[in-house]
Amino acid sequence: MNSILLNKMKALIIAAGRGKRLKELTKDKPKALINLLGLSLIERIILAAKKAGINEFFIVVGYLGEKIKAKLGNGEKYAVRIEYIENDEWTKGNGVSVLKAKEFLKENFILLMSDHIFEAEILKKLKEVKLEDYGCVLCVDRNPKSYIDLEDATKVKVEKDKIIAIGKDLKDYNAIDCGIFLCSPLIFEALEESIKAGDESLSGGVRILAKREKALAFDIGDSFWIDLDTKESCRKAEELLIKKLIKPTDGPVARLINRPISTRLSKLLVNINVKPNFITLISFFLAVFSAFLFSLGNYLSTALGGILAQIASIIDGCDGEIARLKFQESSYGAWLDSCLDRYADALIIFGMSYGYWLLNADVIVWFLCFAAMIGSFMNSYTADKYDTIFKTVKPKKWLRLGRDVRMFLIMLGSILNQILLTLFVLGVITNLESIRRLIVLRKKIS
Amino acid sequence: MNSILLNKMKALIIAAGRGKRLKELTKDKPKALINLLGLSLIERIILAAKKAGINEFFIVVGYLGEKIKAKLGNGEKYAVRIEYIENDEWTKGNGVSVLKAKEFLKENFILLMSDHIFEAEILKKLKEVKLEDYGCVLCVDRNPKSYIDLEDATKVKVEKDKIIAIGKDLKDYNAIDCGIFLCSPLIFEALEESIKAGDESLSGGVRILAKREKALAFDIGDSFWIDLDTKESCRKAEELLIKKLIKPTDGPVARLINRPISTRLSKLLVNINVKPNFITLISFFLAVFSAFLFSLGNYLSTALGGILAQIASIIDGCDGEIARLKFQESSYGAWLDSCLDRYADALIIFGMSYGYWLLNADVIVWFLCFAAMIGSFMNSYTADKYDTIFKTVKPKKWLRLGRDVRMFLIMLGSILNQILLTLFVLGVITNLESIRRLIVLRKKIS
Repeated sequence: MNSILLNKMKALIIAAGRGKRLKELTKDKPKALINLLGLSLIERIILAAKKAGINEFFIVVGYLGEKIKAKLGNGEKYAVRIEYIENDEWTKGNGVSVLKAKEFLKENFILLMSDHIFEAEILKKLKEVKLEDYGCVLCVDRNPKSYIDLEDATKVKVEKDKIIAIGKDLKDYNAIDCGIFLCSPLIFEALEESIKAGDESLSGGVRILAKREKALAFDIGDSFWIDLDTKESCRKAEELLIKKLIKPTDGPVARLINRPISTRLSKLLVNINVKPNFITLISFFLAVFSAFLFSLGNYLSTALGGILAQIASIIDGCDGEIARLKFQESSYGAWLDSCLDRYADALIIFGMSYGYWLLNADVIVWFLCFAAMIGSFMNSYTADKYDTIFKTVKPKKWLRLGRDVRMFLIMLGSILNQILLTLFVLGVITNLESIRRLIVLRKKIS
Repeated sequence: MNSILLNKMKALIIAAGRGKRLKELTKDKPKALINLLGLSLIERIILAAKKAGINEFFIVVGYLGEKIKAKLGNGEKYAVRIEYIENDEWTKGNGVSVLKAKEFLKENFILLMSDHIFEAEILKKLKEVKLEDYGCVLCVDRNPKSYIDLEDATKVKVEKDKIIAIGKDLKDYNAIDCGIFLCSPLIFEALEESIKAGDESLSGGVRILAKREKALAFDIGDSFWIDLDTKESCRKAEELLIKKLIKPTDGPVARLINRPISTRLSKLLVNINVKPNFITLISFFLAVFSAFLFSLGNYLSTALGGILAQIASIIDGCDGEIARLKFQESSYGAWLDSCLDRYADALIIFGMSYGYWLLNADVIVWFLCFAAMIGSFMNSYTADKYDTIFKTVKPKKWLRLGRDVRMFLIMLGSILNQILLTLFVLGVITNLESIRRLIVLRKKIS
């Protein structure tokens, strides 16, 4: 509740239009309700804004507004507050929609379009911009990626942080309008003036402010945003959101095998109501079952155990992916995942060792079990600190020996029926990696 | 080097006097060089200030000043810069010493006495105080602890953060002068005026500022400080510094057995030049040797192994204690200690299991070995996060199952020759504790 009290800034979302270019998708629902990886566009906007600390929303509705209201309600289910503003003139320009909010917003506010999705990071920074006596700050992209449709985009000419021209047909421009604003109530006066002069677009209002040197531009740098006004752009957005799931710390097996499969799986799973922590538990129980299969000792169950361990490792990626795609990340979830992974690792290694013991009764297996177990633990134990420190120091160039690699080795070893060798290899490489980290970090941290 | 560039604030340390009341200790050296747990008083002041982000020092020397210069040099060995200011009038009041720095300090600075030691936290906060047009901010203690010698202390009367009176003989006072100041160059004018009027004390200068409502008081709250002007206060200071080594997260065995022994040991070790990381390694090798003794299997070596494990656990406290006492804390040191502790735990549990196996050839021992190892590891793996979260939520009232308790149980179990039972108990309590944490934290974090 504290964050609500501290972050009083409200956001206005324009969701009145139909989206002509998306007419196939907007026959029976407004553009704002188009589904993108398990969430409607407007839910993505609200949840990204919430992540940036905004908890109160005004939404201007028009075309099929009832459907938006039915979907979002008063915002309770997102732990935010939502009020609606009706715009029966939704066929007019979007400036008219913004103007409908005049009576509701007497202080500075964030202005968002329901068809532009973006990284929360942008809003976090924008909120900190001092508006002073400017009428608006518009987020602009100075290096639009290739997937941004330049033809349809609103162009902006920026000089020393000030907007000096804006429009779709601008020839001389150096930035693209991202559809994300920080506004003062001055924007309403500018819109009134612009509409009176016959321009009903939001850009018209900004143009008036720009003329008076009251419109600033805020460079979003490399942050992600995309304008969704065609079916292709929706598909592209999905592709990009999925691509962003690959972490810079992903190991080689995660990158080449696990992610390609787990992201495809997550893409399906986001559309059913499955909680990330539930996936965490599924992956854990698969690993436990894998350990049980290993412990039986015979080749068939050992090979199956190995394959199951790898499957569990792949599914283990889905919890985080779904959480990130659906704004359901939680520090408890991340922690639970790590803790259960450690138990799963240990159980699988113990299962392998016991299975081998049953058949061969060779005490050496317990030594190797011990080495592989402590080594795997220590790699995980040191990884957080190690990653945190090296994130800022230099990119990693060596092979990352994470859980992805360990589980893959276990699968290979069990299919080849080489349990002892697998434990030996795991024990050696994980412990060497731990020792390497202890030595390398010595010079890096104090 | 960045911190030097960012934190330009300099500190002036007054170290010219002899300290009459400490004359036994200051026959052949100035008061500032009195040794307190392995560091001279002035080294403690410099290192505490450095911890608070101050890297440039002016030291006013007088009585046996050559010895101070010989000890500290240009500050290189502390990674700070030290310049000296000579005061041949050191028999006069301490206001004269401060005034000697007039030509060297043209901007705001921190003023410290060489015979007052204090927690770095105080300076960190004081540095952030906005001085505006005030001449000085004096740190005061509004609830002086019983060990503060009130008779000899400088008393202060504070009203709404302003000092309205200051002096040793003040009857009506509500705070004690801690000898830590943030000053503007205005203090020099005030001192000149005060000295001209016959008062050579620093308090005289503050009194002049107070009369003009230009002297502020800064409440240090519960932070630690002590004025060292008698042999008893030096002894008391040592006792308090040692007492502060007990951590709120210490478990019952650490509190009752390990700390009382390890702090006594650390008190001896601070006076020889032994690095904390070296102690970490000693403790680790003792644990490795303990594991080796366990692995022999016979009762005598098992019992010795258990005792050695407990000794290693006690010595394991000394690295952190020495680091804190001598300002040698490092994040690498803390990390190395944790990593080696995990290896030591695992080795000892494996050694116990193998030793038991040698004599009894009962495969159940490997199951218990596995349970005890994963449980011990998970308790450590979850402890950081758990402690961080619960630090702010509520004090811990249940039994803490940390390494101290585990090693103590291992010692007891091995003396009683109950290896199997010990592994069983360890396995049960550590894993139950891990599961308890997973459940309790579910409600606390999101």
